[in-house]
Amino acid sequence: MRGSAAVMVVMTPQASEAEIAAVVARLETTGVHVLVMPGELTTAIGAIGDPERVSELGLEGLAGVDRVVPISRPYKLASSELAHHEPTTVAVAGRQVGGGDTFCLIAGPCTVESREQTLAVAEAVKAGGASMLRGGAFKPRTSPFAFKGLGVPALEILAEARAATGLPIVTELLDAQHADAIAQHADVVQIGARNMQNYALLEVAGKLGKPVLLKRGLSSTVDELLMAADYVLKEGNEAVLLCERGIRTFETATRFTLDLSAVPWLKLHSHLPVIVDPSHAAGDRRLVEPLSRAAAAVGADGIIVEVAQDPEAALCDGPQALYARDFATYAAGVAAHAALLGKRVA
Amino acid sequence: MRGSAAVMVVMTPQASEAEIAAVVARLETTGVHVLVMPGELTTAIGAIGDPERVSELGLEGLAGVDRVVPISRPYKLASSELAHHEPTTVAVAGRQVGGGDTFCLIAGPCTVESREQTLAVAEAVKAGGASMLRGGAFKPRTSPFAFKGLGVPALEILAEARAATGLPIVTELLDAQHADAIAQHADVVQIGARNMQNYALLEVAGKLGKPVLLKRGLSSTVDELLMAADYVLKEGNEAVLLCERGIRTFETATRFTLDLSAVPWLKLHSHLPVIVDPSHAAGDRRLVEPLSRAAAAVGADGIIVEVAQDPEAALCDGPQALYARDFATYAAGVAAHAALLGKRVA
Amino acid sequence: MRGSAAVMVVMTPQASEAEIAAVVARLETTGVHVLVMPGELTTAIGAIGDPERVSELGLEGLAGVDRVVPISRPYKLASSELAHHEPTTVAVAGRQVGGGDTFCLIAGPCTVESREQTLAVAEAVKAGGASMLRGGAFKPRTSPFAFKGLGVPALEILAEARAATGLPIVTELLDAQHADAIAQHADVVQIGARNMQNYALLEVAGKLGKPVLLKRGLSSTVDELLMAADYVLKEGNEAVLLCERGIRTFETATRFTLDLSAVPWLKLHSHLPVIVDPSHAAGDRRLVEPLSRAAAAVGADGIIVEVAQDPEAALCDGPQALYARDFATYAAGVAAHAALLGKRVA
Amino acid sequence: MRGSAAVMVVMTPQASEAEIAAVVARLETTGVHVLVMPGELTTAIGAIGDPERVSELGLEGLAGVDRVVPISRPYKLASSELAHHEPTTVAVAGRQVGGGDTFCLIAGPCTVESREQTLAVAEAVKAGGASMLRGGAFKPRTSPFAFKGLGVPALEILAEARAATGLPIVTELLDAQHADAIAQHADVVQIGARNMQNYALLEVAGKLGKPVLLKRGLSSTVDELLMAADYVLKEGNEAVLLCERGIRTFETATRFTLDLSAVPWLKLHSHLPVIVDPSHAAGDRRLVEPLSRAAAAVGADGIIVEVAQDPEAALCDGPQALYARDFATYAAGVAAHAALLGKRVA
Repeated sequence: MRGSAAVMVVMTPQASEAEIAAVVARLETTGVHVLVMPGELTTAIGAIGDPERVSELGLEGLAGVDRVVPISRPYKLASSELAHHEPTTVAVAGRQVGGGDTFCLIAGPCTVESREQTLAVAEAVKAGGASMLRGGAFKPRTSPFAFKGLGVPALEILAEARAATGLPIVTELLDAQHADAIAQHADVVQIGARNMQNYALLEVAGKLGKPVLLKRGLSSTVDELLMAADYVLKEGNEAVLLCERGIRTFETATRFTLDLSAVPWLKLHSHLPVIVDPSHAAGDRRLVEPLSRAAAAVGADGIIVEVAQDPEAALCDGPQALYARDFATYAAGVAAHAALLGKRVA
Repeated sequence: MRGSAAVMVVMTPQASEAEIAAVVARLETTGVHVLVMPGELTTAIGAIGDPERVSELGLEGLAGVDRVVPISRPYKLASSELAHHEPTTVAVAGRQVGGGDTFCLIAGPCTVESREQTLAVAEAVKAGGASMLRGGAFKPRTSPFAFKGLGVPALEILAEARAATGLPIVTELLDAQHADAIAQHADVVQIGARNMQNYALLEVAGKLGKPVLLKRGLSSTVDELLMAADYVLKEGNEAVLLCERGIRTFETATRFTLDLSAVPWLKLHSHLPVIVDPSHAAGDRRLVEPLSRAAAAVGADGIIVEVAQDPEAALCDGPQALYARDFATYAAGVAAHAALLGKRVA
Repeated sequence: MRGSAAVMVVMTPQASEAEIAAVVARLETTGVHVLVMPGELTTAIGAIGDPERVSELGLEGLAGVDRVVPISRPYKLASSELAHHEPTTVAVAGRQVGGGDTFCLIAGPCTVESREQTLAVAEAVKAGGASMLRGGAFKPRTSPFAFKGLGVPALEILAEARAATGLPIVTELLDAQHADAIAQHADVVQIGARNMQNYALLEVAGKLGKPVLLKRGLSSTVDELLMAADYVLKEGNEAVLLCERGIRTFETATRFTLDLSAVPWLKLHSHLPVIVDPSHAAGDRRLVEPLSRAAAAVGADGIIVEVAQDPEAALCDGPQALYARDFATYAAGVAAHAALLGKRVA
Repeated sequence: MRGSAAVMVVMTPQASEAEIAAVVARLETTGVHVLVMPGELTTAIGAIGDPERVSELGLEGLAGVDRVVPISRPYKLASSELAHHEPTTVAVAGRQVGGGDTFCLIAGPCTVESREQTLAVAEAVKAGGASMLRGGAFKPRTSPFAFKGLGVPALEILAEARAATGLPIVTELLDAQHADAIAQHADVVQIGARNMQNYALLEVAGKLGKPVLLKRGLSSTVDELLMAADYVLKEGNEAVLLCERGIRTFETATRFTLDLSAVPWLKLHSHLPVIVDPSHAAGDRRLVEPLSRAAAAVGADGIIVEVAQDPEAALCDGPQALYARDFATYAAGVAAHAALLGKRVA
């Protein structure tokens, strides 16, 4: 990882815009990657690249510079060090994600299968208090011979559901070819677990100008998740939601092992909001409600959960979907645990 | 696993003691293992052994027999099928563990290092509302050249702490040679993760007449945990507390991966209470409080947590121990999540 | 996985081309995916799609049809059932891979760093008896701030190395945008472990008309590897080389755990050749030679190994690269084990 | 792990016995654990305990002392540093295990089920060239309701098989209560994977005066295996055979994942011989032969393999046992790979 050292230049509270611009200009002469991160009290400037060149710039002596701090972790832009430990909040159609006083409840069908099914679930989760609507238009499938989603028509159905309910849309980007269509319809662009290290796709997602919900790969470490987030962040997109969705272990009683320890770990080491997906990890509806409560209690900034009108008939992942008719009770139960941590549903 | 099939004979609500005894006597003629499990409405009789012999007994026709149900799971006595889905409650010095309306808060030092240290922590956790006191007298150590605990003198210190605080004692049995000493002083006998499949030790523990807290092996499946519980249960000891303490996975950011999904899974598949140990899994104090809240929210019957007066000076596992001075606040936070599930601290 | 059942139509040895064409035509009326696989004695026709429609076709009664066999495994085209247990051989510039009597020795630098370095290593591995030259032009990197390869100029250097040595080139396709450039210069297109489930990329690779070396994802099961191969095979590209390169486990003494059991398992369950990459799994040069011998002994069809002129100076993965000066001795040692299984180096 | 530092005192080639004894006496004044390890050229003296006390002894100045080397690894006695990189050889009834020029072929039934079965397999593996006979008298079983072996009568059958064939016996010690019986009949005492961290049992095994074959726990790291070996070695028993038998990973296509990388790693980091058990890892007879060849090729000092006269009728692990009638061909195939490394079957 030569050439990947990083420094954070912390400005004084009194530093002027011109002084900040001067530091940035000096850094940019060396070809390093520069990111300005304004905070409440001070501005920090992240610079990632050749460490020798940066050290030769003599930044410490520039006007308005408080100190220059090396960053030692393998992830840079996602590090809580870079954000000087202030959590990032992401705004999605007026709803705030992250920041410590809101809890984001994303719910909806695994896959958009029809207009009727999608609108019915959307109305149910809206009535139950959801913050956003999830739904897959393009589905990654392990076998090429499985149902892959409706594609663009599904995006149009989701747009109709948003119009009907006011809920912003979360949907997965699977292939760079679909980027424009996704950008047109999605409020949050999801990157699935299988694509967490599809770096070409991460860069495409980073450029769409939409918040990105980045799922942890099923055997990715939390360090690797933050480095993947760096791929999005370096495109200038600071609105990344990290998502824990279960890791692959020797235990097969559950589909994956939901790593809830990762949530407080990520909150300690990154400034980004953390969402939990209990549905894919459990693979069994009866475990989804307790794990959702646990996600709220452990300090997650939200959950993303599958809900179906008729799970038995779903083309994909039916056994793990909550019944739409039970959603309001479920949501109230989860919200009660979030409320103990001072959070209201966004 | 030849010869390991099981049946459960469910008696009618009206069945008399004599009718129950007649079924047991009939079963015992075949050399199968028999366990009588009285419930609120009916009695169930578990029989494990040669399935052909059992089927030849014609049990269905005996007076008082409602039905004979084969049990298909690899674990038998720990199965919720055998308990006809009524949860087992375990009484420890007047405190009830399991059953759905109590939450058990076991706290104390990793290891008994001195009388002063142990009594100080015991008073602190008592004041903070703990249900029981934990403390290691004999410690399993990966290297033979590490501190192994004070041994029998530690048991005497724990007895003194019980006398001072009224808290029952949970301590680990590591070697059959120490069984008598442990039985004399412990209220709950802990079997550690490394010994979950030390079957000789499980049988010794099962015979001590004390509740057994059985920790899941660090790479044991939940099926294997329940089969290990069977080793204790078959000694006639029905007071087994299952304990999730983290499994070994590829992720090294935390010491182990706390498998909170296992808690609702175990509640579905077994009648035994489930305790969570967040300290060993996290290996980092800052993660222990959020994981404890999550354990309460996910439906555990209790937690077992390490607390130290001066963690920096502890001989063993200091970085994961809570500060004794913070315990009351911590306990109140966890209890609030348990209260949402209708549980008060035992 | 609705609609993903498969059948294999086995023709009689006497079946004519016209009879085969008639079966294909009948199958294609239903919209199922059809693949004709000629064998030495008989032709088999794979059909994957809606099982009800296929069963309504009455294929059993058609002229030249011997029998119709359902395929039950989740992978279809990669299954040894489909190939009626005849191994597939892949021809690469006159070298045969697979088939049981050759062993393929692919060697070269991790990454093309310069013309001089690449030509020097290419000459060394050619002199040592290598079958093909490997070298990365585009490198996937966990952090966006690490060296990512020289790109297209690296492909031109590789082409020059081929011209100089006659060795065919194996190089990785990382992004669909580079597909044309890769297709122009590569003899074998490598799909890396991180992209094993990047289905869009698999389809692109399948269409390039070149053999594809498909690396197993670091936490992918062998079933999933075969389903990923199906993505390439269904494009009509039958030249897929499976590659075991180590899986992620709890063990950190080695970088990954090389799963050599997967080699005979894959040979039993698939018709495709299996290559082993011992370099990335070991992460330590001293383990690469014993693991290479083991790969030959366990029945692999070849290995792909990293070799460097000056590993200490390599920009990427130096500690795992063999010294170029030791390559001939190494290759002879590996070939001796392959020879015991009746294989000569291709 | 306070107080667990270690030093190795390397004596000069000319050091006398009296000088060695003087160093030992000086070390013993501090209460550290001392182990004298004579080598071909020099003697090394391992001392494990309080590092400050050892450093105060001024050992460097004593007559005959060449140098004092700190040992930094968590395992001490098993470390190749302690043995100054000379491999340990273990003698079993005239057969040498370890040392680089022999290969040890241990074969026999999983479990002793009857006299006839055991004698028949013993004769077959003797005829096929085995070095030792394996067979279980006491079997660890995951469920308490499974067949647990014949116990002491099985030991007597094994003794009869030894008398008939001359093959030394390898059998498992499961419970300290059986130690005397095992010591009476076994030539090599096996500690099973489930008991690798049953420290009380390791100490009992270490005192029996017999070589110990120590199986790696199914989720134990190689570091932990060497620390477990330390428990045996510190009893003064230097005859420990390490055994890789497969680790638990996410992959379920094979029963366990045989970690053949561990073999060269252990040879680099320890002086102890390394044996491979391919049967339990594979769980499928068809994989056992290729994995055995790979074990020989990767540099193991031997293998331990299950053989049955009639695997279909075996009470335990039949599907993984080789057919006795195929053993001679199998053994010759494995021996050919060992011969390439300069080893003949012991």
